[in-house]
Amino acid sequence: MGEIMVAKHAVWPRVGDPIFNISERAQKAIEKLGKENVINATIGSLTDDDGNLITLNTVFDEYKSLPNSEIAAYASIEGQKDYLEAVKKACFKDSIPNAHIRAVASPGGSGSIKLAVWNYTNQGDEILTSDWFWSPYVSISEEVGRKITTYQLFDENNNFNFNSFRERFLDIASRQERIFTILNTPAHNPTGYSVPDNDWDKILNLSKEVAQNKDKKIILFVDVAYIDFAKDDDGCRKFFEKFTNLPENILVIVGFSMSKGFTSYGMRMGAAICISSSEDVAEQFYYSCVHSCRATWSNCNRGPMKVLANIINDPNKFKAFIDEKKIYKNMLSQRASAFVEGSKKCDLEILPYIDGFFISIPCEDPKAVSEELIKDNVFVVPLKKGLRFAVCAVSEEKCAVAPSIIKNALESVRSQNLSRV
Amino acid sequence: MGEIMVAKHAVWPRVGDPIFNISERAQKAIEKLGKENVINATIGSLTDDDGNLITLNTVFDEYKSLPNSEIAAYASIEGQKDYLEAVKKACFKDSIPNAHIRAVASPGGSGSIKLAVWNYTNQGDEILTSDWFWSPYVSISEEVGRKITTYQLFDENNNFNFNSFRERFLDIASRQERIFTILNTPAHNPTGYSVPDNDWDKILNLSKEVAQNKDKKIILFVDVAYIDFAKDDDGCRKFFEKFTNLPENILVIVGFSMSKGFTSYGMRMGAAICISSSEDVAEQFYYSCVHSCRATWSNCNRGPMKVLANIINDPNKFKAFIDEKKIYKNMLSQRASAFVEGSKKCDLEILPYIDGFFISIPCEDPKAVSEELIKDNVFVVPLKKGLRFAVCAVSEEKCAVAPSIIKNALESVRSQNLSRV
Repeated sequence: MGEIMVAKHAVWPRVGDPIFNISERAQKAIEKLGKENVINATIGSLTDDDGNLITLNTVFDEYKSLPNSEIAAYASIEGQKDYLEAVKKACFKDSIPNAHIRAVASPGGSGSIKLAVWNYTNQGDEILTSDWFWSPYVSISEEVGRKITTYQLFDENNNFNFNSFRERFLDIASRQERIFTILNTPAHNPTGYSVPDNDWDKILNLSKEVAQNKDKKIILFVDVAYIDFAKDDDGCRKFFEKFTNLPENILVIVGFSMSKGFTSYGMRMGAAICISSSEDVAEQFYYSCVHSCRATWSNCNRGPMKVLANIINDPNKFKAFIDEKKIYKNMLSQRASAFVEGSKKCDLEILPYIDGFFISIPCEDPKAVSEELIKDNVFVVPLKKGLRFAVCAVSEEKCAVAPSIIKNALESVRSQNLSRV
Repeated sequence: MGEIMVAKHAVWPRVGDPIFNISERAQKAIEKLGKENVINATIGSLTDDDGNLITLNTVFDEYKSLPNSEIAAYASIEGQKDYLEAVKKACFKDSIPNAHIRAVASPGGSGSIKLAVWNYTNQGDEILTSDWFWSPYVSISEEVGRKITTYQLFDENNNFNFNSFRERFLDIASRQERIFTILNTPAHNPTGYSVPDNDWDKILNLSKEVAQNKDKKIILFVDVAYIDFAKDDDGCRKFFEKFTNLPENILVIVGFSMSKGFTSYGMRMGAAICISSSEDVAEQFYYSCVHSCRATWSNCNRGPMKVLANIINDPNKFKAFIDEKKIYKNMLSQRASAFVEGSKKCDLEILPYIDGFFISIPCEDPKAVSEELIKDNVFVVPLKKGLRFAVCAVSEEKCAVAPSIIKNALESVRSQNLSRV
């Protein structure tokens, strides 16, 4: 046993990124067999039918026409003023809650989760999210000694499982001062589900009930990374209005990201936006986050901040952006419909998809099924409870045929496992 | 007293950034009086004589000619491979130590300090740096419950105060498992000092002495943010070679930044580079940092990574870049010389300047002197032990006259304070 130089809390298993790993294998298959013979549903970005990343010209023409100094200069620690104002418009549109709202820039949506988790939970705290979840929530929590605990996202009818949510929420409330919940909605990664407005009411009523105990602090973190690819721009934002007039010990933090909506994944721009009925609580948020920014990444990438502000504040540019994005929203929607239809035809069980980049297939032994699918040159991401299929990165044609291939792989693994018993 | 929603560890004084504050006042004075009548020495970026940010065309032409997808796509969590290889060349040039070296991408140099502090110190640890230091070291440390402690950078002859360094280093070693030291050299912010090679020998010998106790873990963090504006490109890198063959319980981490050398402050690209005689220790570094990246900012800004790789790997582009940078290095050097000469003429005491963006003037009551200077329309940053004058942002002509104005302000404050006694 050699020298251990890292601190104890910083020792982690030496594992590679499993998604990266399977993506690499897909890439090799494409090189060997040609892209027409491979279905690579592992990628988490929007691509054209040939697998090339889609970038919006309305975004990148604006970006590349910025003066160099607008890209090169340091931004303010908290983000440029015009950006932070534009973020609120981009995020809430007409559904802005009547509350004290503060935004702080962050590197992507990930940075906003980091800011919220670090500043609003204590060492050892459990953080609540659904059993189908984006795995970096675990890394973000574990990095600083917090842990993820889950409720069941769906009930037996594939509706939002409020009973499971309630049970886990109350259990945490009975043990912790802070009840920090991550809700990834609308267009949830990995299922494509969105929490319906009436379930939002139940969540908020439960929160208010618990908030009657003034010693409890309830933080609802809403990860809206995929909101700009929801079909109904306005409808999918209506729930924001419900964050008006909450008790002071319920704080909502929205994690905003430019990655998907502005096809600028690699530029790392996002924001944490707090919503509170108390101006003082909103100010606390601002100063805590600014300290964290200064102490973590200092300030964020300035160029894309200007791009967002320029597009949001110019009606013509905004319209051109929306029109261009619409083409790809339609493309995404058609791919997803093809997959959903294909699933119905072959009787493949999938989770309720509403919007977004991914569809999930619940199954036993997801790793074995994923390996079985690789024999058919279909590459998906195995999760704990099933498979994630990236409709954002697969042509409509392939989306239509994939379900029956998956169905066959599922049955093949099932019969192999049975024969082993 | 209203509701406190942030966690206890995340409550900070609600203060604005003092440098930003004084910069804003300088800006207002310029608007009122004209830029020819104001000396704004508060800015931490290289500007032309009119105060406009300098951006290198060789960097931004390369950047703006990247295909959109090269900017838009996610980078690997640890940074793109070609970037990480290029970083090593850019950082070490011909002085690469013979050791196991790993680089991990970070948002600017700040991000690399975050990675090192978080992964290599424990809650409550003291971190050692010099009494003249870049103030965010405090924010980065305090954010996660560590604290900065200082040695005296200069002795009575304005040489490196090794005795003070030794005393504080041994004191920490007597109380802590981990002795984590930040050395900001060459071209130190705020003094412009560089630790001489023979003092590096003393630092390393002391480290080796302490490292004989195998329970001690020594981490030397070398912040080289300003290295690319040191006059002697090769000479200023010679000390890197001394990091060959260190004991396994001495780890060197170099904080690299594109901000200054590639005039890309706002793009937030840097790297943490570890140097160890043990491959296993280097691997620990890699996996700890990758976990932190994933859990903090996820991945870094992809476009500038490609720019660095393209420039470093193409001899013609590299030569053009070096040639263009040389113009500004000469400009900076002439400004600094003018300030140093001006100080000699009026007998203003300054700290030993060798290279870099700033010169420091030690004094009593820096805030009062700074306010006194504002009456003369000279804006500098007051530090705890003196004033920071940004030669990077002030014309040669103004650099020549500033020292006598500062000298007068110093004497004026001194006599005011005396008259009050």
